[in-house]
Amino acid sequence: MQLEIIFLGTGGSWPTVKRNVSAIAIKRGGEILLFDCGEGTQRQIQKSKLSYMQISKIFITHYHGDHFLGLPGLIQTMQLNDREKPLYIYGPRGLRNLISQILSLGYFTPTYEIVATELNDNCSIKFDGYTIKTLKVDHNVPTLAYSLEEDERPGRFNKEKALELGIPEGPLFSKLQKGKTIEINGKKITPDMILGPKRPGRKIVISGDTRPLEKLVDFAKNADALIHDATFHSELEETAVEYGHSTAKQAAEIAKRANVERLFLTHISPRYMDSKPLEEEARELFANSIVPKDFQSFEIRLKK
Amino acid sequence: MQLEIIFLGTGGSWPTVKRNVSAIAIKRGGEILLFDCGEGTQRQIQKSKLSYMQISKIFITHYHGDHFLGLPGLIQTMQLNDREKPLYIYGPRGLRNLISQILSLGYFTPTYEIVATELNDNCSIKFDGYTIKTLKVDHNVPTLAYSLEEDERPGRFNKEKALELGIPEGPLFSKLQKGKTIEINGKKITPDMILGPKRPGRKIVISGDTRPLEKLVDFAKNADALIHDATFHSELEETAVEYGHSTAKQAAEIAKRANVERLFLTHISPRYMDSKPLEEEARELFANSIVPKDFQSFEIRLKK
Repeated sequence: MQLEIIFLGTGGSWPTVKRNVSAIAIKRGGEILLFDCGEGTQRQIQKSKLSYMQISKIFITHYHGDHFLGLPGLIQTMQLNDREKPLYIYGPRGLRNLISQILSLGYFTPTYEIVATELNDNCSIKFDGYTIKTLKVDHNVPTLAYSLEEDERPGRFNKEKALELGIPEGPLFSKLQKGKTIEINGKKITPDMILGPKRPGRKIVISGDTRPLEKLVDFAKNADALIHDATFHSELEETAVEYGHSTAKQAAEIAKRANVERLFLTHISPRYMDSKPLEEEARELFANSIVPKDFQSFEIRLKK
Repeated sequence: MQLEIIFLGTGGSWPTVKRNVSAIAIKRGGEILLFDCGEGTQRQIQKSKLSYMQISKIFITHYHGDHFLGLPGLIQTMQLNDREKPLYIYGPRGLRNLISQILSLGYFTPTYEIVATELNDNCSIKFDGYTIKTLKVDHNVPTLAYSLEEDERPGRFNKEKALELGIPEGPLFSKLQKGKTIEINGKKITPDMILGPKRPGRKIVISGDTRPLEKLVDFAKNADALIHDATFHSELEETAVEYGHSTAKQAAEIAKRANVERLFLTHISPRYMDSKPLEEEARELFANSIVPKDFQSFEIRLKK
């Protein structure tokens, strides 16, 4: 199943000509999960290859305007385009109140269901094929990091062993691969006899706005992608601390220690017309660092 | 004084790749008045030549999302950029409640003053150099049209007459032009002796979302610019009626009967990738019709 990260808004605080405010889409098969939804996200979606009608769930990291003010417009536009499916929204405490406020702005009455679920630190919600986990991070208001972790995949199929056991190539192979027990010559063959150890699914972690946080190292352990707050260059480390953010260098340290595959630096301060210096200081510590542009997308491939 | 209309969002209902939702700026000297503020307006302003810090007053026509959902983000960004001056917001009844809702979304506390004033039909508010008038129009929710009318200008200076009366060219001319009485050779000269009849200032009318309305003909009488709802082509006149909008043709009829100088067709439905047919049907009735693109600006010159 294809898994892709599409950066819809990579700027922090307020939009600039180059970067809109926070929004990250994760497309997994036919489903789109949206992480944060700053003002203008519905239009960013329209300018991308995505369709907002495919969004099933929205996860908000925290309630600073640049992370959620795109919700009312998106919700209303979904309705104007005849959405009937429920929309599930998740976020830290305060979400139910926020959504009820949002739904009562101006003349608007939702005709489809909007389900708001408040999450705490260390939550784990199982969906079809993946789990979303939360971690309370270190910002100036309650903020959650999210981890999307796919279910384990079946182990590698040992073809030689299967042939040794007298199983003919064909439909029986496929049954075993799908985890079903088969019978051949009156003998039961269970999948674990043929398949190697289960293999982990893919993992994407989104830090939300946060100061560098020890717990994130474990939370992001071995992730295929870590999307981390990198609002400032390390020259402005004090400012970063004051406002509850990280520098690009600090994000790279977390990525390195967490042994992630790739680091995406985001929530870039509007002061940086050129984000190269942030990317460069991150790469000194962690080579596979990138500051994505709005609309850039990255496929997360299954490890062999 | 320069007077300019800058179209920041010319689309209706929801944003498209080409057109953002409603927002029109009028720049008069160093002051910017904003009419409607759909989602993403702050970014449209950044992409234009305007500065949102110059916005002194915002007029909202009605409380459908595509006309006001850019307010919370704009208000917050003004604060992040250290606004200290009060911001004056005007709109139909319900504004005070709306603004108090907007100011309590998420973690935000305004540090500058936001003054919300509710307006009725037929209001007239005098500002320095111009008056804003309102007209209740015919939409599905309470909606106001706005008219910006500059103060009358002094009449034309009759140079010959001035010289005849023995006034030497120079500072005394300028005093008379500014409406001051002067004395020359012990004789009082009042401005009305030298100046022709007062000349009207410029007038710009914004219809808001509305079905074609008889009263708008008078309201927009002799305006230099009428910015009118033209959501649909006349092929969809029934749809326009149902949703409380006008067709391009109907807007042109109003413009013609009101004897305006120029007609700007706006609030174009997202269904029209190409707005040429709307412009064409308007021009058949009223030649000086245009469907502006986002970011197009038009100077409104003083009549000689």
